[in-house]
Amino acid sequence: MMMGADPFAPDKCLPDHVIDATKQALDEGKTHYSLDNGYAEPRLKTALVNKLRDFNGMEIDPETELMVGPSSAFTLFLSIRICIRPGQGDEVLVTNPGFAENINDVHQMGAVCVEVPTYEEDGFALRMDEFRSRITERTRAIVITNPNNPTGTVYTRENLLELAALAEEFDLGVIVDQDFERQIYDGAEYVNFATLPGMRERTLTVFGTSKDLGLTGFRVGYLVAPAEIMPMLKIATFNYVGPTNTFAQYGVAAAYENPAYTDEWFTIYNKRRHDIYDALQGIPGVGASMPAGGFYHWVNISELGTSLEVVKHLVETQQLGVSPGNWFGSAGEGYIRVMYGSNGRDEVFQEGVSRLAAGLREFAELKGVSAAA
Amino acid sequence: MMMGADPFAPDKCLPDHVIDATKQALDEGKTHYSLDNGYAEPRLKTALVNKLRDFNGMEIDPETELMVGPSSAFTLFLSIRICIRPGQGDEVLVTNPGFAENINDVHQMGAVCVEVPTYEEDGFALRMDEFRSRITERTRAIVITNPNNPTGTVYTRENLLELAALAEEFDLGVIVDQDFERQIYDGAEYVNFATLPGMRERTLTVFGTSKDLGLTGFRVGYLVAPAEIMPMLKIATFNYVGPTNTFAQYGVAAAYENPAYTDEWFTIYNKRRHDIYDALQGIPGVGASMPAGGFYHWVNISELGTSLEVVKHLVETQQLGVSPGNWFGSAGEGYIRVMYGSNGRDEVFQEGVSRLAAGLREFAELKGVSAAA
Repeated sequence: MMMGADPFAPDKCLPDHVIDATKQALDEGKTHYSLDNGYAEPRLKTALVNKLRDFNGMEIDPETELMVGPSSAFTLFLSIRICIRPGQGDEVLVTNPGFAENINDVHQMGAVCVEVPTYEEDGFALRMDEFRSRITERTRAIVITNPNNPTGTVYTRENLLELAALAEEFDLGVIVDQDFERQIYDGAEYVNFATLPGMRERTLTVFGTSKDLGLTGFRVGYLVAPAEIMPMLKIATFNYVGPTNTFAQYGVAAAYENPAYTDEWFTIYNKRRHDIYDALQGIPGVGASMPAGGFYHWVNISELGTSLEVVKHLVETQQLGVSPGNWFGSAGEGYIRVMYGSNGRDEVFQEGVSRLAAGLREFAELKGVSAAA
Repeated sequence: MMMGADPFAPDKCLPDHVIDATKQALDEGKTHYSLDNGYAEPRLKTALVNKLRDFNGMEIDPETELMVGPSSAFTLFLSIRICIRPGQGDEVLVTNPGFAENINDVHQMGAVCVEVPTYEEDGFALRMDEFRSRITERTRAIVITNPNNPTGTVYTRENLLELAALAEEFDLGVIVDQDFERQIYDGAEYVNFATLPGMRERTLTVFGTSKDLGLTGFRVGYLVAPAEIMPMLKIATFNYVGPTNTFAQYGVAAAYENPAYTDEWFTIYNKRRHDIYDALQGIPGVGASMPAGGFYHWVNISELGTSLEVVKHLVETQQLGVSPGNWFGSAGEGYIRVMYGSNGRDEVFQEGVSRLAAGLREFAELKGVSAAA
């Protein structure tokens, strides 16, 4: 089993107003190419301008700084692509552990992906000495995911200001993937990197609607980037993929116009975050810390074995799917990522939590790991 | 004005069964990630297997040879991408004139795009001597669009057999974009390149639903490729863009299950093809030949001036939008591409045709070009 039918996102039914707006768009013939400037339907453009202002604290010009694409995966790829020249040895810095797609995207374009380690002991904060020592004259950009996937780290203002200073010093582009920006717990401050002084003109901010709104099957992402590079991004988008589904944009617009349903989901996410944390306490060899953002736990199982050994054990003995930490870079070895949605069926989730705890406990016994000294 | 509200595709209302199937999918919760093998919903997979068998004469295994993506633009990009190594000087042969995206895609990946000229005198057939003289040890693949966009050429079996022999001789991949495969006029034979002897294992066939079914806003394309490279294509798709809109796939499935409405559209396309051809006859300096496929005319205006001059004149004096031929490669200079849909409002189309003829006639007068000797 997984923690939800769809391991990456809530599988709760979507609210009526989102479905109805999408169906209405179909009825009204919103079925042609969506070729307005920024590849966004007017209603979505307005909804995004408002969302970016109210939620992210960014006043943007939708005609010059915003574009829509068929996913945040795509706008992330596009953002990295625009910063590098394929096959020229350009370097991009990514966090380790970090979101695997960042790394794959860079490799696939013939650029060099430089992994910058982060450490559990300081909550996987960005360490400037680690970044600085890896910057060369070929370095073009830094990619971060905030909150970080898989560690759940929400970067502090102080930490991001350090990164901003570094980006300025070495004149680097900064790509910030904010897919999980709505899942920030315990009242932590969430800082939109592009709003820091001087960062607007060097930051590409990647936004999605799968994690943000639960609209996983809609395939709509968006990107805020400096006006001067937006024309290139739009041309490249036309060549790579073309416009985004037209009627789906109306569902997304309706969701942003009335996103109150995500509050209920957040409450469920937060409860489940605690449930998993609690269930993992006291299991020998398992180090569970409380994630500050996202909807996944990053669990240290290094005393038990490798990531793959633990994943295999959970699949084979508990039919439970979790991700091996080394998917997220070499520093992810010794961890597993446990993802959960806001699945309405609480009994399924609770069963998953029980299996997770039981499977880890059993594995610890098999390995002869006993309670921490 | 354009020849239709949407210059690239029919702007006629879509049939009820397509809209209804999409709405039903929304009602039934087909709103999650579409992560089945091949990124296709089961119903669409079945519909595509049947369509490929009945329409294209290809029996395929949908689990190993088929994938769905968010557009044929994307699956075309992906197909070219998989054949080359970014920034390594790999070469791809494309026809000139040819579909501009092919060329842009190749350039954007740091590969070398080698344009192979075709000539009006033999209907823009593929000339093997022109291909052969441009093949080097760096050549990886050939990209063709069949019917060709912009020339409307439908390649003959004989011509494609020559290309197949060349591909075999030099061990090249062949990418065939079949976006306009449903618009083949006058009973011409349409040959699916992948069905030629020995070609199945070296051909990537790119299919779309915008031109094929008029589903421009749905953003669903598909690709048939050799089983041995499909795993790479799927992984790359996951990284570049992720799955395709889920509920839109049900509309596409419904359209392929019952595509009779496209017959009516075809009748309109064909009539309009004749209408434009007839209207262009006898205009001094204008060479209009009858296209064999697609829904666009490729008009030789070289006696009147450059492509851009003529396009500007039509926009400025007739408010009529057509494409300059040099968008489609250097050999497109001296041509314009006139695109038309199956727009239900015949009076709008007829007005467009009148303006096209009047604008060209006026430009000929301005330039002092008189009736052909």
